[in-house]
Amino acid sequence: MSLPLILEKYRTEVDSEIKAIIDSRSSPVYDMMRYHFGWIDKTGNPAKNNSGKALRPALCLFSCEAVGGNYRKALPAAAALELVHNFSLIHDDIQDNDRERRHRPTVWTIWGKAQAINAGTAMRILANTALLRLRGDGISLEKQSRLNELLDEISLKLIEGQYLDISYEDRFDIKVSDYLNMISGKTAALISGSMEIGAFIGTDQTSCVNSIQEIGKNLGLAFQIRDDILGIWGHEEETGKPSGNDIRRRKKSIPVVYALEHTRGNTKKEMISIYKSRMMDENTVSRVLEIFESVDAQANVQKMVDRYCREAIQAFIDLKLANNAKIEMEELVHFLTDRNY
Amino acid sequence: MSLPLILEKYRTEVDSEIKAIIDSRSSPVYDMMRYHFGWIDKTGNPAKNNSGKALRPALCLFSCEAVGGNYRKALPAAAALELVHNFSLIHDDIQDNDRERRHRPTVWTIWGKAQAINAGTAMRILANTALLRLRGDGISLEKQSRLNELLDEISLKLIEGQYLDISYEDRFDIKVSDYLNMISGKTAALISGSMEIGAFIGTDQTSCVNSIQEIGKNLGLAFQIRDDILGIWGHEEETGKPSGNDIRRRKKSIPVVYALEHTRGNTKKEMISIYKSRMMDENTVSRVLEIFESVDAQANVQKMVDRYCREAIQAFIDLKLANNAKIEMEELVHFLTDRNY
Repeated sequence: MSLPLILEKYRTEVDSEIKAIIDSRSSPVYDMMRYHFGWIDKTGNPAKNNSGKALRPALCLFSCEAVGGNYRKALPAAAALELVHNFSLIHDDIQDNDRERRHRPTVWTIWGKAQAINAGTAMRILANTALLRLRGDGISLEKQSRLNELLDEISLKLIEGQYLDISYEDRFDIKVSDYLNMISGKTAALISGSMEIGAFIGTDQTSCVNSIQEIGKNLGLAFQIRDDILGIWGHEEETGKPSGNDIRRRKKSIPVVYALEHTRGNTKKEMISIYKSRMMDENTVSRVLEIFESVDAQANVQKMVDRYCREAIQAFIDLKLANNAKIEMEELVHFLTDRNY
Repeated sequence: MSLPLILEKYRTEVDSEIKAIIDSRSSPVYDMMRYHFGWIDKTGNPAKNNSGKALRPALCLFSCEAVGGNYRKALPAAAALELVHNFSLIHDDIQDNDRERRHRPTVWTIWGKAQAINAGTAMRILANTALLRLRGDGISLEKQSRLNELLDEISLKLIEGQYLDISYEDRFDIKVSDYLNMISGKTAALISGSMEIGAFIGTDQTSCVNSIQEIGKNLGLAFQIRDDILGIWGHEEETGKPSGNDIRRRKKSIPVVYALEHTRGNTKKEMISIYKSRMMDENTVSRVLEIFESVDAQANVQKMVDRYCREAIQAFIDLKLANNAKIEMEELVHFLTDRNY
């Protein structure tokens, strides 16, 4: 499966924008950021590593163009959104004790958790300063101020979602609705916010911006659920992580939550006891996969992905935007629904 | 020693402002903040605990009034500054592994480090949203935008200073100049920024705002150096911490840095070997105190406090502001120079 056009066409400009923001600063704190983005190795020498899909800036710029705006005006905001996403990854890795990301040691593994906390928080603040680069590009001060506000609101929702995610670790009564509430903050807030911000820069029509935001929410939910599916049934050669990985990490992702809600009696007790125990050997992983199959978890959860995507596509068509925007959107949604990495 | 007037007169209004900001949100994340400020206990029941001196908001409101402004207009900014300060305390306690603050368990001790990271970062973002409350109070959008920028710049300097502080833990070649560079970020940036922001809201005269900012820088340096003195020679009944506490924690505070720079030969080697070792028994603490005395560390370091305070006072007098502002400033500086808690 090839990458959708919108994930490729803006990439170079987004990377340059983020580089310009980080390179305007001097302190070793920013080297941790450069390392995280894959531009340097841990000793400070230039490197070229995978720095992620950059989905959020792409969604921002795409939305700006789709509503008739000039995407270049939105570049600082797109960079800000990618900084918000990556701040959350740096802190996530500390919180989850994850030693690897994108096939490299995580920031905390190299600099220690204390300094990685600094790198993450500084990156979040840097996102605000990125928005200052919108100045002088014909964007009114009112709009700039509103963009600051949106970025802060999105970030708070993201952290509130992250709080729930961590608090669910010790709970076994999580329902699918709790899960959706959690990912609405942790994932969908930033994805829908990225589309909202792009559209907001591209047009003054509030109703259109609101629709794009709603579309983004559905896409965000679909994206996270698909991510959870890949965390269990994905193939190592595509995702970079062994199949069943999220079971080994005892992550309360949607297949688990679905199974906890849909199993009964002894099977439910077994699920709870497996997820309560500190041990997770390969036999247990297989047993969990069996239980998932007994409630048809993968198909039922994928149905949720498909439904959110369908709603997003329909709402996008209803906006009656330019034809090529519709094609790009369909390509993106197709990718999000069926992606294997 | 009684508290200077400026630390008392604004206190109630500052507390209400911070409460209003935090209470506008609903998520358990904000309970961690309420706990940190001493308003609730860990189970969520109302409590009344010491929430600190609130020096930074007081400096902000005082500076606003001193330059002829209405301090009430600056209340949202004052609250924002206290939120920035407290975000850094929450993260500091995680980074330093400190289990107690203000005689209570720290946030991470109760909720764990992962959730405490969330509380700290969310509090930093909340500081931005606090500035939205400046709207409709006759403060121009240009000024509001500049205030956002100032808050972000101050926060980045604070984190850059915190980075240095942590990086000094493993170094034994730190000079007094390195130390001053570190506290310029870690402490003085926020104290001088608080005064700058207050003055900026109170007047349009840039040169006056710049002078106030410089005065704040000197006060900030004096404040941190005095804090370091108290960390070693303070008395438990006043500071709440046993005398010699920072020696036991092997903190690279100014007396240590001064002694490392001013001892020679075997005494210097002894200092380095003491600070390199993981052990710090009471005999060693006494030995460090002896070494400090041999280079007259306390008196020499207090001289730095006095010098920064003198410079601050003189620059403040040169501004020729209202007489009562001068009196309040002298009272504050006297407190900062000689405070025992």
